[in-house]
Amino acid sequence: MDLKSLLASYKQRTEQQLQALLAPTSIDPILQQAMHYALLNGGKRIRPTLVYLVNQLLDGDLEKADPAACALEAIHSYSLVHDDLPAMDDDALRRGKPTCHIQYDEATAILAGDALQTLAFELVSQPDYPLPASIKLQMVHKLALAAGDKGMVAGQSFDVRHEGQMLNLEQLQQMHRHKTGALLSVAIELGALSAEHTDNSTLHALRQYGEAIGLAFQVKDDILDIEGDTETLGKPQGSDLAANKPTYPALLGLAGAKQKLEQLRQDAHQALDCFGPDAAALRALADYIAMRNH
Amino acid sequence: MDLKSLLASYKQRTEQQLQALLAPTSIDPILQQAMHYALLNGGKRIRPTLVYLVNQLLDGDLEKADPAACALEAIHSYSLVHDDLPAMDDDALRRGKPTCHIQYDEATAILAGDALQTLAFELVSQPDYPLPASIKLQMVHKLALAAGDKGMVAGQSFDVRHEGQMLNLEQLQQMHRHKTGALLSVAIELGALSAEHTDNSTLHALRQYGEAIGLAFQVKDDILDIEGDTETLGKPQGSDLAANKPTYPALLGLAGAKQKLEQLRQDAHQALDCFGPDAAALRALADYIAMRNH
Repeated sequence: MDLKSLLASYKQRTEQQLQALLAPTSIDPILQQAMHYALLNGGKRIRPTLVYLVNQLLDGDLEKADPAACALEAIHSYSLVHDDLPAMDDDALRRGKPTCHIQYDEATAILAGDALQTLAFELVSQPDYPLPASIKLQMVHKLALAAGDKGMVAGQSFDVRHEGQMLNLEQLQQMHRHKTGALLSVAIELGALSAEHTDNSTLHALRQYGEAIGLAFQVKDDILDIEGDTETLGKPQGSDLAANKPTYPALLGLAGAKQKLEQLRQDAHQALDCFGPDAAALRALADYIAMRNH
Repeated sequence: MDLKSLLASYKQRTEQQLQALLAPTSIDPILQQAMHYALLNGGKRIRPTLVYLVNQLLDGDLEKADPAACALEAIHSYSLVHDDLPAMDDDALRRGKPTCHIQYDEATAILAGDALQTLAFELVSQPDYPLPASIKLQMVHKLALAAGDKGMVAGQSFDVRHEGQMLNLEQLQQMHRHKTGALLSVAIELGALSAEHTDNSTLHALRQYGEAIGLAFQVKDDILDIEGDTETLGKPQGSDLAANKPTYPALLGLAGAKQKLEQLRQDAHQALDCFGPDAAALRALADYIAMRNH
């Protein structure tokens, strides 16, 4: 299988797993519809793909990566639903479709986001998830550290707090390390745990890779806001600029941001040197992140 | 120690534990202040108290109950913060103090709630929480089932969905079993797990007790909305009535609701028969729930 097809197959696997997750068992079917809507939103599935790729790199079973992959996507989806709320970014459109609070209503979007976060922890702690309890517990803990006030939510909160203010490069990186980097890094950790792999030097190399692609992801996002077009992006082009958001191009210039992106892509490749050709797919993912057009 | 002092001591223990939780380590100190504000809000601490009481009934170590007790209070606090939001109940006052989104702002309240939920799962999965991984993992899973779209959030969502509509008694009970009952029941389960106790017949009796006090709690809440006074309640008396909310008094009449409450109190006592005098404190808690004035 070529690398493009491999990445597509993990995306598809994620979609299938997510589809199967939400049996209509709730006393409020609309809540579950909204969760479904938020989960199956045409996302790029980068976090689950990372879990699968690391699982395979470390000779794991793909089945043992499924709940972790879905948990990450549940956390990511919940964060998007809450970020889009009127009190936050107030976005009506996400990937070309109405955001959750537009499609349903604000209360439903808040609750669907809440329940998606809970779902993530439900998934990795499932009794029939065929991994040792100690591994699953580590997954829970790492996921919580990455998602909460030590990670993603802190980054989001820092972002909201500094809206319309200029940040320096260090602050900007710190924000993104929390806001998006933490979850991408933990995808790698969960991928390794799903292969029951806890060797520290391997993890160290993978963490460096994760750090690089996490920042690259954000730099590319900022560049796309300037160079992309609304239809491909699924959100209004230029919206960061309009909102006076701190971005890499604003701090480094467009050319400087592109240079930074290329450097990060190379850092990601370099971190994988120790794995030789086995890490080809992870390299391809780094390239995809740096070169995507949406 | 008399029973009243015992309950007060568990409330105090909870406060101390919660105080110690939130070291100012976040990149956004205001987020952590908001979490602090939401956690240390003068609550009754019924869920942590239940954890401690069951832990002690089953000869557990109190220290092993602490993280579980705090986790439950974190989930409960997050749900209050989100319930109070303008898009939900739109409450400006909670226990006589400004609600989180009034004290801070809406975005901060949404994010503080999100991070408090994450914190709950972080706490019970801590590596240095001195319980076997399998027990902690069960705690995570039970907490997730009780808090998410199979439990609390589903109840809240059902409530929002049926605002201003009359429910029948069965629907009302089903709503409250999810909205408040699930978390009270899981407090009991976590208390038992904290004592490393998994005997099914014991748990069955305790679950019946939990079911009874869960419903009693809500019936009493509904009665207080009619009979309490605004100052003692910390929220406007008569607000359910004004919002045309379905309540036990609305369905059963005030006398009928009081009769129901007394029946539930007796059910709770009966469920504890098998424990003899050891369960005196749990009985006292049931009485407190039925007889409190706020």
